[in-house]
Amino acid sequence: MRTYKLTYFNIVGLGGPIRFLLSYGGVEFEDIRIERSNWPEAKPKTPFGQVPTLEIDGKVYYQTLPICRYLAKQFNLLGKSDLDALEIDAAANTVHDLRKMVSLYFFEQDSAEKAKKKETLVTTTLPFYLKRLDDTVKKNGGYFHGGELSYADLFFAAVQHNIKGFMKNDVFEDYPNLKQLIDNVHALPRIAAWLAKSPKTDY
Amino acid sequence: MRTYKLTYFNIVGLGGPIRFLLSYGGVEFEDIRIERSNWPEAKPKTPFGQVPTLEIDGKVYYQTLPICRYLAKQFNLLGKSDLDALEIDAAANTVHDLRKMVSLYFFEQDSAEKAKKKETLVTTTLPFYLKRLDDTVKKNGGYFHGGELSYADLFFAAVQHNIKGFMKNDVFEDYPNLKQLIDNVHALPRIAAWLAKSPKTDY
Repeated sequence: MRTYKLTYFNIVGLGGPIRFLLSYGGVEFEDIRIERSNWPEAKPKTPFGQVPTLEIDGKVYYQTLPICRYLAKQFNLLGKSDLDALEIDAAANTVHDLRKMVSLYFFEQDSAEKAKKKETLVTTTLPFYLKRLDDTVKKNGGYFHGGELSYADLFFAAVQHNIKGFMKNDVFEDYPNLKQLIDNVHALPRIAAWLAKSPKTDY
Repeated sequence: MRTYKLTYFNIVGLGGPIRFLLSYGGVEFEDIRIERSNWPEAKPKTPFGQVPTLEIDGKVYYQTLPICRYLAKQFNLLGKSDLDALEIDAAANTVHDLRKMVSLYFFEQDSAEKAKKKETLVTTTLPFYLKRLDDTVKKNGGYFHGGELSYADLFFAAVQHNIKGFMKNDVFEDYPNLKQLIDNVHALPRIAAWLAKSPKTDY
């Protein structure tokens, strides 16, 4: 049996989707959570100064989306054809981009710059992305692609917690298809079981 | 026969790797280049306000890395196993991240902020990434993974032009393994033929 060891911070963030995928796949994994105070020491030991990393049978892999995609392949969450996979990847990458923009605001140190970034997010970026993402889910029968569950759905349903936390606001409130998708993913038995037992964090 | 229609700006940028992949695959494609002055009109017609997009048999696909990965699959540039593909994806995603950081500097409007971003890139980010990328290529026999050509190599050999252009400097000069990889990819017959006939641009 394969051994999986996830290393990330003690937040949902970008570790969340990997934890969802491993849970969905029904495999055991070690869920290592680095304290921020230990990060300066841990950072140079990662392949490119970043977490999450996933150790599979003793070898360290990095980069969130590639790790998610690898797990998606193992657990049949990539659609039926290569073109299905392309659309599923595109949806996951888009959610990843949106989270990145929110995190660039959240971690901005300069207060004037931070206010400017927030303004752009609230008035432009979030409405633009969320409307299009909501429409995509509506058009695809409640999922991001093809009327069936894919890793893009799990990716979104994990990362949305991080986006809401960073924005200190339920930015998905006015997007009923996205809200329903979150509820549906969270109700999957193995995801529900994971959520019940995993640490509660703000982001 | 499939028809491919790429839409991007008239620069290498993120369109470059897709043009490299289509050329490497030996398929014909339409290479549509939007002028910056036409972008405000074209932007809302794209799926998420961004290019490149790739139309395949009349359907529009989006997101650079997913498009590259799809083409890589068609042209056998994804290694042998799913774990090979994970490492190849991680390398391509890392180069994509680095380009993004360089572009955030390049497009910064505030001059003080721009100077700060450049300082961080030159003293910290670029040396950190380029050393690790160079070591990866050295360790893998001249490629990013597994001693054989993958789409990560084509991705890098295209995008490096954009990074150099934005930095107005050959930032790869002191990294012999990266330089050699660029030369090797550019010497592939179909890539060389593409480079000979494609428009020359600064980025």
